[in-house]
Amino acid sequence: MAEHGYRISPWELRWCGLDVDQLQRTESTFALSNGHIGVRGTLEEGEPRGLPGTYLNGFYEEHGLPYAEAGYGYPEAGQTVVNVTDGKIIRLLVEDEPLDMRYGHATAHDRVLDFRSGTLRRTTEWSSPTGRRVRVSTERLVSFTQRAVVAIRYEVQPLDGEIQLVVQSDLLANEPIESDTSDPRVAAALQSPLVSEFVSAEDFRAVLVHHTRRSGLRMAAAMDHQVESSGNGLRTQIDAEDDLARLTVAVDVPEGQTLKLTKFLGYGWSAQRSAPALRAQVEAALAGALQTGWDGLVAEQREFLDHFWETADIEIHGDPELQQAVRFALFHVLQAGARGESRAIPGKGLTGPGYDGHAFWDTESFVLQVLTYTMPEAARDALHWRHSTMDKARARADQLGLRGAAFPWRSINGAECSAYWPAGTAAFHVSADIADATARYLAASGDTAFDREYAVELLAETARLWLSLGHHAQHGGFRIDGVTGPDEYSAVSDNNVYTNLMAQRNLREAAAACRRHPDVARQLDVTDDEIAAWCEAADAMYVPFDDVLGVHPQSEGFTTYAEWDFAGTSAEHYPLLLHYPYFDLYRKQVIKQADLVLAMHLRGDAFSPEQKARNFAYYEARTVRDSSLSAGTQSILAAEVGHLDLAYDYLAEAALTDLHDLHNNVRNGLHMASLAGSWLAVVAGLGGMRDHGGRLAFAPRLPAQLDRVSFRLTFRDSRFVVRIGQDSTDYQLVSGEELAISHHGTELTVGAEPVTMAIPPITPPGPVTQPEGRAPRRRNPLEHDGRG
Amino acid sequence: MAEHGYRISPWELRWCGLDVDQLQRTESTFALSNGHIGVRGTLEEGEPRGLPGTYLNGFYEEHGLPYAEAGYGYPEAGQTVVNVTDGKIIRLLVEDEPLDMRYGHATAHDRVLDFRSGTLRRTTEWSSPTGRRVRVSTERLVSFTQRAVVAIRYEVQPLDGEIQLVVQSDLLANEPIESDTSDPRVAAALQSPLVSEFVSAEDFRAVLVHHTRRSGLRMAAAMDHQVESSGNGLRTQIDAEDDLARLTVAVDVPEGQTLKLTKFLGYGWSAQRSAPALRAQVEAALAGALQTGWDGLVAEQREFLDHFWETADIEIHGDPELQQAVRFALFHVLQAGARGESRAIPGKGLTGPGYDGHAFWDTESFVLQVLTYTMPEAARDALHWRHSTMDKARARADQLGLRGAAFPWRSINGAECSAYWPAGTAAFHVSADIADATARYLAASGDTAFDREYAVELLAETARLWLSLGHHAQHGGFRIDGVTGPDEYSAVSDNNVYTNLMAQRNLREAAAACRRHPDVARQLDVTDDEIAAWCEAADAMYVPFDDVLGVHPQSEGFTTYAEWDFAGTSAEHYPLLLHYPYFDLYRKQVIKQADLVLAMHLRGDAFSPEQKARNFAYYEARTVRDSSLSAGTQSILAAEVGHLDLAYDYLAEAALTDLHDLHNNVRNGLHMASLAGSWLAVVAGLGGMRDHGGRLAFAPRLPAQLDRVSFRLTFRDSRFVVRIGQDSTDYQLVSGEELAISHHGTELTVGAEPVTMAIPPITPPGPVTQPEGRAPRRRNPLEHDGRG
Repeated sequence: MAEHGYRISPWELRWCGLDVDQLQRTESTFALSNGHIGVRGTLEEGEPRGLPGTYLNGFYEEHGLPYAEAGYGYPEAGQTVVNVTDGKIIRLLVEDEPLDMRYGHATAHDRVLDFRSGTLRRTTEWSSPTGRRVRVSTERLVSFTQRAVVAIRYEVQPLDGEIQLVVQSDLLANEPIESDTSDPRVAAALQSPLVSEFVSAEDFRAVLVHHTRRSGLRMAAAMDHQVESSGNGLRTQIDAEDDLARLTVAVDVPEGQTLKLTKFLGYGWSAQRSAPALRAQVEAALAGALQTGWDGLVAEQREFLDHFWETADIEIHGDPELQQAVRFALFHVLQAGARGESRAIPGKGLTGPGYDGHAFWDTESFVLQVLTYTMPEAARDALHWRHSTMDKARARADQLGLRGAAFPWRSINGAECSAYWPAGTAAFHVSADIADATARYLAASGDTAFDREYAVELLAETARLWLSLGHHAQHGGFRIDGVTGPDEYSAVSDNNVYTNLMAQRNLREAAAACRRHPDVARQLDVTDDEIAAWCEAADAMYVPFDDVLGVHPQSEGFTTYAEWDFAGTSAEHYPLLLHYPYFDLYRKQVIKQADLVLAMHLRGDAFSPEQKARNFAYYEARTVRDSSLSAGTQSILAAEVGHLDLAYDYLAEAALTDLHDLHNNVRNGLHMASLAGSWLAVVAGLGGMRDHGGRLAFAPRLPAQLDRVSFRLTFRDSRFVVRIGQDSTDYQLVSGEELAISHHGTELTVGAEPVTMAIPPITPPGPVTQPEGRAPRRRNPLEHDGRG
Repeated sequence: MAEHGYRISPWELRWCGLDVDQLQRTESTFALSNGHIGVRGTLEEGEPRGLPGTYLNGFYEEHGLPYAEAGYGYPEAGQTVVNVTDGKIIRLLVEDEPLDMRYGHATAHDRVLDFRSGTLRRTTEWSSPTGRRVRVSTERLVSFTQRAVVAIRYEVQPLDGEIQLVVQSDLLANEPIESDTSDPRVAAALQSPLVSEFVSAEDFRAVLVHHTRRSGLRMAAAMDHQVESSGNGLRTQIDAEDDLARLTVAVDVPEGQTLKLTKFLGYGWSAQRSAPALRAQVEAALAGALQTGWDGLVAEQREFLDHFWETADIEIHGDPELQQAVRFALFHVLQAGARGESRAIPGKGLTGPGYDGHAFWDTESFVLQVLTYTMPEAARDALHWRHSTMDKARARADQLGLRGAAFPWRSINGAECSAYWPAGTAAFHVSADIADATARYLAASGDTAFDREYAVELLAETARLWLSLGHHAQHGGFRIDGVTGPDEYSAVSDNNVYTNLMAQRNLREAAAACRRHPDVARQLDVTDDEIAAWCEAADAMYVPFDDVLGVHPQSEGFTTYAEWDFAGTSAEHYPLLLHYPYFDLYRKQVIKQADLVLAMHLRGDAFSPEQKARNFAYYEARTVRDSSLSAGTQSILAAEVGHLDLAYDYLAEAALTDLHDLHNNVRNGLHMASLAGSWLAVVAGLGGMRDHGGRLAFAPRLPAQLDRVSFRLTFRDSRFVVRIGQDSTDYQLVSGEELAISHHGTELTVGAEPVTMAIPPITPPGPVTQPEGRAPRRRNPLEHDGRG
């Protein structure tokens, strides 16, 4: 058997060999999802397993939030994603031995996530403890085209002599799972969250309907099967009880013959619909899937992905592992966003129970940047979700004594679930991030219907928040005090530069939107005076600057704080938040994740090149990257200020966060923002793409190690490709109208013929350093052996 | 029956009539304590009752502190004062009717807390529902001279004809009590905290020994009795079970005769001693009490109080209610501190379960100021307690990544119990407050033994905290960032002026102490370099000043914050913390309690007179006094800057906080700091006393409404009296050495002959205002009818 671990390959992620202690990691990286249903990459036979999980986007249980000292406005209820009825279980008895890879002997074991077929394949050759040998081949998919459908093809082949095979295909509710609650970032355990409501089983089909105890959400899971076997004495039976439905297939299969089971799963949930209605819904989904058939589902899946890669692919020449990692990232971002439709895109997508399944600002600030330029309808759908939570955001603002809409720090259904307000509720920038994503999507799509029906309201209500949150001070400037910026090692500070600049953009975009659609503005009771007040606040927005050091403080006073003792902080004391109290992190110059540096990306128009270089160096020396939200942004600014090797290192870090398990928590799910960050590091970093003012500008430049990088974008229905070489860049339209862009400040029009633009020589930047021991891993692709 | 409510009288607090819904209030105001044992003023017959409570200083139960999102360094366990075995219950059966004042009819009912006898007396004339009439007279004391002893004299007299009386005298453990937990400031309920370990009952004596479930503390309560009756057929019986011991006395008493029961109670507790040892301890206490006898205990009590009043009395001519309130305040401060010895003085003393029975900085900053100049040995003992928790404070500092000692925000045993770090743990000023109280006690007492054995260590370890908490910034100055000052409507701010100035004093006092006692300093590993570093930090201490407004910001940036909308805040929205989120309170110019103004009292040497006037006016307009820690300090500074009427109003507010139940929570116990604040408002406010640099200075001045105010102080074994009139002040030594002081800047020597000093004319100050609706009640003593 070959060496264990991930294999480098441009269009797939393959893990060879079985490592029981690595199962939790690969369950996350091998998770399949369409944004509506998520299925972790657990082995079909159920055990050994890490942390099984099947998730339905938006389906959660509610639980009380305890406070030793409660306070006004603290959320009373939390929400946690529920591991719903597990339909991927197919157990196998080989003669009288259950296939369990902890026993007997696996002569081959291979799992492959195929980025082009959109399926997870597995091949196992196994000898039972008594020496009976079988080959098990499986393939599963969560359909991008039929959003309620999961399908699994399961084949067993005896490898010597006829064998009696018994296959049990289950729907299992309330499967016991473990939860790691010692880390505040990990989801709280929810034991047996589902209450049975309806059970049916007939022929090859079974349905289970359950509801949650407290949140009162209802779900249905159904399975149907096709069995093909040329074996002898095929016998099947179906049974169902409250939390289990099971199809049992028993057959004697001769050597060289195959038992082939195709399992179709239908999932649905609702807060409103009855058990019979949900049953009907999932049975209808099954009927559709059966009508399409396994081969049809596989073909649709590939066609969907062919289109996606044609629109969105990134090619990297010179670093095969990075090529793989970036496609892996794009594939998972697609899975998280493709069919979420009116639901959130959680921080972990639907790949694990981390962060309780909550959505954060990650969605708008990182994931939606990718989707806006590769799959704009998915970006639009995610913004629909935010808009659908407007009433809750208005109520929250009102509860906090503010106007407009205060969107939650973390939530599944739109209600604030953060129990620690300094890090959660006070991070009001989430509302500006939503406005930013709205404005970006609008500029990139020209979607007028969205503008009228959603964008004006999203922009106006968030602008109202800022106007009530800030004030014009006697000392000059419109100031926003006592809020928390992106960096989670600071909290409740004054005039956070990121927040103030994003609020400024929000106020201006709101004014512009209301002027574009005065009738919509009137419906929202927006007056001319209110618009004038937004503009006045935006114009007066206070952005602190430290004249002594010549840099922007992250927030007012930040640069006067004590330095962190990096030299005295050992490697095992990271992440710092698990080893130092908040108060000490907050009051020192130590940064968890890009904050001022993120401002220099998203509001790059507000900084001079000299400020960017000085600021980047200043914050680079103080940023520890205990968050996965940082490397991508650091890569972008490193590239802009000319540190191309560093940009490359950070790009690789962002792309490999989950494959290398850099934060040691991939078992709880993938880091969607980091995966999105790797796209950003390529497109906005190496490609230098910016969209300030709604027009695309590029400033491409590659590190010496990469020969060529190309990426594909969609902008206002024009699809085009950017091919960056060491000395020049080609821009070429793939479809749609010609497009005016700029290249290193030179205007050009992208048309069907490639335009080649020279890359100007670079001014060598001054040196930068990172905190001791926190430099990114230096990237030399030749050294890498492809192991995670 | 006379009108209900408190009666004005100079040397007692009397409540006439029974008001069941007022019982909780009067249980607190009528509480008796010697600092070791506390007994709330519940009626002897147990019911009707508000919130019964018997407390032993330092005796607590531990409980987990829940966090929805935990963080490094959060305290895991809380501590709550336990309502221990109740020994004050004496029930009465009149013929077959239990005396219960909710039934039948009370023709007279009078309770008196006598400030000179130190006893609580009660007289009730009651007709049973069937018309049998009795007079019940009781008197109880918690002995100042025998700290483990409580005694009750209980007399019943039939008012018409012979009556059968049955008296049941109980020791009752685990009595069910209610707790109001909706307000975060109120103690969490602890149900049945005591586990029985030992029971005995014989003759007139019984002992119960219990321990707590989790904290493992052990306590014993014992009772013994003397029965005097000339009635017929006296029969007694004693019984005991796990949680109840009872002496039953039955007798027929003719009209005109009396049944007299004297109950002696002994209490003891320990974390170490066994049940037999504790039993022995309380039986020994009883033996002592019986040997002294009721009359002896009463005489000792009066002698103790005679001495106290001779040393500490305050006389106020022109406002009888204020006279009463100030003596009430002094009496309760005495009760809280007199015999606490090596235990804390909790925020509520031992008068109720509020604040979970925790001690705060209130002790050092307010209560110890009073004790230092009136009962210095009690101040010393309270500092002993702090010193005894040094190991826990060192461990806490270490856990927080700091050096030296970080004393807890709230605690019973010295371990931090604050579950909300921004308001709790980050309020590091508590350590400077302890240092301040240490230095004050030293200067006032000249107690060299204390200096060597306790003060050097307290001062040096707190100085170490400040040196590690602050830093010398590139921008200049020694800065202390990210801490919480006294004002609880601000948190986690930079360079809080109060904190920085108090830390400065702490650093300097530590350097001086180590230079006084170099051998002690060496034992603490204090080097010359360390002392130099303390001095350097103190000299460089950064104190922000707002040049635009010409005032000190409470903390850096405070004066640039948005103003609170006082006009839009209705009266029922106070206290603000119950109606607005922390984040909004923290980032606006709204102040719960004196912070910068307190700095101007305790570090008045750091402000010019002009700054004091401007700052006072600025903060006066923004301080809402949702805390009871504020009025006294505002009174002091109002007096200093010349607002004598306002000083008088705040003095009255501080003194009447509990009698008028201004914070609507006196049911949970008295506000010791506010009671102490009324002494401060007289002595430091009207008397203008300051002790900067260890020398006493006075600047007396009275509002027009008061004819004369005098107070008595002890300073370095000299006792003297200050008699302030409208135009002049007399200073006269009562005992001890002559004393050099100053009067409005003029040096003088206080000797046995009174020295009369003229009060210089006042410069009329500029106007000040308070937030809308938050001005103190204007004081016109003629208007008051003496009702609470």
